[in-house]
Parts: sequence; C-alpha cells; structure tokens
Amino acid sequence: MAMRTEKISLANAQPPFFVGIDLGGTNIKLGVVDDLGRTLSRLSIPTQAERGPEDASKRMGAAVLRAIAEAGLTPAKVVYAGLGSPGTMDIPAGKLLKPVNLKGWDDFPLRDKVSEYCGLPVAFTNDANAAAYGEYWVGTGKDFHSLVLFTLGTGIGCGIIVGDLAIEGENSHGAECGHIIIDCSPNARLCGCGRRGHLEAYASATAVIKRTREALDSGRQSSLRRLLDEGRALTPKLLAAEAEQGDKLSLEIIADTARYLAVGIVSLMHTIDPSGVLLGGAMTFGGKDSALGQQFLGWIREEVRRLAFPIPAERTVVDFAGLGGDAGYIGAGGIARLAYRKS
Amino acid sequence: MAMRTEKISLANAQPPFFVGIDLGGTNIKLGVVDDLGRTLSRLSIPTQAERGPEDASKRMGAAVLRAIAEAGLTPAKVVYAGLGSPGTMDIPAGKLLKPVNLKGWDDFPLRDKVSEYCGLPVAFTNDANAAAYGEYWVGTGKDFHSLVLFTLGTGIGCGIIVGDLAIEGENSHGAECGHIIIDCSPNARLCGCGRRGHLEAYASATAVIKRTREALDSGRQSSLRRLLDEGRALTPKLLAAEAEQGDKLSLEIIADTARYLAVGIVSLMHTIDPSGVLLGGAMTFGGKDSALGQQFLGWIREEVRRLAFPIPAERTVVDFAGLGGDAGYIGAGGIARLAYRKS
Repeated sequence: MAMRTEKISLANAQPPFFVGIDLGGTNIKLGVVDDLGRTLSRLSIPTQAERGPEDASKRMGAAVLRAIAEAGLTPAKVVYAGLGSPGTMDIPAGKLLKPVNLKGWDDFPLRDKVSEYCGLPVAFTNDANAAAYGEYWVGTGKDFHSLVLFTLGTGIGCGIIVGDLAIEGENSHGAECGHIIIDCSPNARLCGCGRRGHLEAYASATAVIKRTREALDSGRQSSLRRLLDEGRALTPKLLAAEAEQGDKLSLEIIADTARYLAVGIVSLMHTIDPSGVLLGGAMTFGGKDSALGQQFLGWIREEVRRLAFPIPAERTVVDFAGLGGDAGYIGAGGIARLAYRKS
Repeated sequence: MAMRTEKISLANAQPPFFVGIDLGGTNIKLGVVDDLGRTLSRLSIPTQAERGPEDASKRMGAAVLRAIAEAGLTPAKVVYAGLGSPGTMDIPAGKLLKPVNLKGWDDFPLRDKVSEYCGLPVAFTNDANAAAYGEYWVGTGKDFHSLVLFTLGTGIGCGIIVGDLAIEGENSHGAECGHIIIDCSPNARLCGCGRRGHLEAYASATAVIKRTREALDSGRQSSLRRLLDEGRALTPKLLAAEAEQGDKLSLEIIADTARYLAVGIVSLMHTIDPSGVLLGGAMTFGGKDSALGQQFLGWIREEVRRLAFPIPAERTVVDFAGLGGDAGYIGAGGIARLAYRKS
C-alpha cells in the first residue's frame, strides 16, 4: 500500500509539535506532527543496523533535527519525541533486550541515547503499538474507542489500544497476537518462534508460502507451477497476481488465509471487544484498492460474522488500516503527545 | 473453596464506604467494604429469578440497607454501590440484554432500579470483571499491575484488569475468554454457545464431564465406572476423588484439562501480558488446599512454561485466586470506589 498521508503547512498547524520515529530493520521513518496528528515533514534514512545502535542513535538524533528544520520549526517548538522500535524490549526502562531484527543491539538504552542526540525527551514503545496508536489517533480507527491492528507481513505484528492506553504488558510482551494459539493439536503447524499452532504459523506471508508449496508438492494443479519453473520467487504478490488470473489454488490459499485470520480476529474480539480490528502491512493481497484485496477482506468479514458472538459480529468494524507506512511515525508522535500531556 | 475473607470492625475501618453486590443466577451476595477493600458486613439472599427483575431489585435494595445497618453504618456514610451481574448486558446503559441465567430479565434497567431501591448511586459491570477487580484490589493479585482471572465452573468466565481499567469492551463483550478459539479445525469440539473449538468446550466442568464420558464409552478402565453404575453423578468432584485414589483415567482427564487451560492462558499472556493469571471458581479439583489441586496447578504451570515466550514464561504468576466466593462483591465494591473517585 503506497498511500501517503497528506502534509500540511506550518501556517495551518496546531501546536504543540511532536516528532515520531519508526525504527525498522531496514529503514527509519520519522516525521513532525502537530497536536492533531497531521504531518508537517517526514523523511526516511537507512537503518544500517550493522553499524550498531550508538551510530544509529546519533543518525536518528540528526534526522530528528533535520525533520524539525524541514517543518519550518526550531527544536524549541517541539516538545516531545516518540520512538517505536522492534523488540524484544523493556519499555519502562527504554531499553532493547534481544531484538531479532537488530542484530548486535542487545541491551542498548535506545530511548535515552536518542534523547541525548536529539535533545528532546523521548517516549518509547514497540513498533506495533505505535502503528496501532497512529491508526487510532488519525487513521481508520479515528472514531473508535479501542482497536486491534494486525500487521501482516513476514510475521504477524499486533497492537492493541483501549482508550488512550496501549496494551504494552507487564513484561513489554503485550499484543504479541501473532503468537496466540489457534490450533492446540500436537501436530499443529510450527511457528517461526519455534512453538506450535500460532496464528502466525498459518496466516503470515511465510505461512502462506509454505502452505502453497505443500499444495504444489502434493500435486495440485496451478498456474504457479510454470512461473516457479521459470525461476520466479513464490511470494504473496505472485499468488495474488495468479489468483486475479483465476488460478484456483492461489484463490484457495488466500481464502484459507482469510479463514485463519478470522479465527485470530474472533479470539481478539472475545478478549478485547474492540470498536474495530484493522489489517495493515504488506500482505493484504492488494489491499483496499484492488478487487482481490476486497475479496480477501470480504472472506475475513464473512468468517468473523460466522464465528463471533452476535453483537460483536454485527457491530465490530473489520477493515484495512488507513495510514500505510506512515502509521508508525504518526503513532510514535501520538505516544509522544500522551507522554507530554502526562509530564 | 470455602475460604472467607476476614471481617473488620467499624473502629478499624477506613472511610469512605462502599457496597458491592454480586448477582448470580441462584444467590445474591453483597457486602459493605471500606476504602481498603476490607469487609465490614456481608450477607446472601436467594435470587429467586423467577419472581422477575423488579422484585429482585427491590430485595437487593433492602439487602443493601440491611448490610449497611449490620456494618454499624447509616446509609449517609456509604458513598457508592457497585453491582456485578451475569450477561448479556449494555454496561454503559446499566441494562441487561438477554441474560442466559436470568430468564425473563431481558432489557431490564437493572442499575437504575437497584439505585432507586437502595438510594445510592450504582456502578454497573459484569460479574467476571467484578471478581477480577476484587482479586486485583485485595486478593492474590493485590501486588499486580494487571491480571486475567479465569473462573472455572459449568462454563469458563473471564475478567481482565489492566491498571485500574476493566476490559469491558466496546459492546460489553470484553473478556469473554471462555470463547477464544483454541482449535480451528472443522471437527473441533462444540461449545455450549453453539460455536466450535472454544476453550470452554475443552476445559469447563461441562467439557470435563463430556470428555470423561467419551473415554468411558470408548471402553477405558476406570474406578468411575462402578460409581456411575451405583447411580453416582459424574462431576469434577467425583473425578477428583477418584484421581486421589489413583484412578488413571481421572488423573489423565485432569491433566488434559490443565493442558487445555494452559493453551488459553498462553494466548492471554501473548495478548495482555498480565502480571498474573489467576484461576478461581468451583472446578479447581480441590484448589490450593489439596494435593490434587496443587498438582493440577503444577501441570498448568509446566505447560505454560513450555508454550509461552521465555520472559512471560519465567515471570508471569499463575496461581489460584484468593478471595473465593467473596471476590464478586468485594470487586463490585472496588468498581463502586473507582466510580466514586471519578464522580
């Protein structure tokens, strides 16, 4: 989903101002947002994780100052920064523990280092909760009281917002809902985390590819077969393209993915009962602007209605997320705003 | 679990005072608690649901006044009442919708009626969240920042507390965790609610009895067989007694129940990441004061450690609830206290 949120000019902006930082394994996105969550400036720099966390913190600090300048502001006009990071982490301590996607960054005091290099107080959270807060603040969830955001990609990320509270958890392990158990049988699918039966083992991009390979290995007919023979890589995108051409196996794999996701969504509905459940990330088979993406969403909704209690089945919004790749930095800016208002 | 919380005298109590009401299908328990959640007086009256909700509201109002008098207080010294009710309900509206265990009470404005009859403002919540708040306030969870309480009985109730927030849900359907899906296969066990694969379909008393009958029907040896032939009813209590005598099938059924519960607990740990998960209700195979109850808890803990992420596996407290049948009215008193402090 390549959509971008629109930028506003300083003249139309509502102070105070915040900087949100969305740290990823490959890129760091950041932006200046106003008190209403609107973007004044944004930029992206490569993470270059291999250069280590001190170097990245220094570059994040410099990028924050650059984004502030590009917004037409001085650092004194920005009151707080927010930083969403992949984990594992200790959120209250502002520290990374052993982040899988940031090798060698173990036990690094990221929050305080970034704060030192940008000269602003920094609120720290995980990337999935930051994205969820972004959708809650100004995205598809802007009229919700609570939401669950599933971010579908190589794995399945999740963020949960109830009121102005992100469910961060006692041990900074809240909203790891890619790892709820949807199949408790001993032969359930193995998850990337090494445990069995997790939602992520059925409905992530990795799982979609694995299920497709198994179907092909079992002899199922499919137009995918020729493409793979030609050396094309098996990806959810290729699957979507073939499904759009009418390939039955591809369509079936996508429909099964919708069914598995609905199981996870219903378990969250019966736990949190949020105003809405949103789906973001790269693996939405085209998302809201494509017929296939809408069909995928339709299958999910249909199965949710079948599996959930009548009242949530009828009322809970199930939809695509709206902010695309901007959700993380906007949400991190929103977390900064909450910290500022409590300070 | 027949334990009772100790009562304190008015001379040692800390004002202000609250009344908590725990409405059940059979009995209504209520008590006066002080600002620290300690009980000054308590009593129980039959629900007599068949006499209808107006009659019950009137009797609840009278019982509230009686409990206040028994505490040595006048109504003017009590600032707020709290009422925990079985559902379904609309919590913000203070109304029942179609409560399964209170036939004929549909669409009744319970909160305002009880308030009218006792002359106090009334805070309304569901019974499971009230019990969870009681454990969080003064029970096993009194040092927690967040908790999940599973109440094991005919069904599986659940309450979730994060900070001072009960997860009530957008549609008053929060924490219905007996109905999270632990088995997404098409032939998964059928739940009492009519849907498949729910935790309650595997680990409630109803499910335990059903699984035992299936094992007996399949020809498994067991000392239960003779007792059933003698006309004894198959209950979790009978199962516990036979397990204590060394009956292998009974022990196996209890161990399987522990395993299923662990699956549900881990899904909650990977969603909420609470300080602790507590187990209350009648179906704990003897609970904390029996060797079998402790073995049941040990099996759950072992399986949780195996299934959960390392940090929560190591840190999350998994234990029996501490307040027994008092959790509901104490928690309802705590919910009253929250409402009073916000008022």
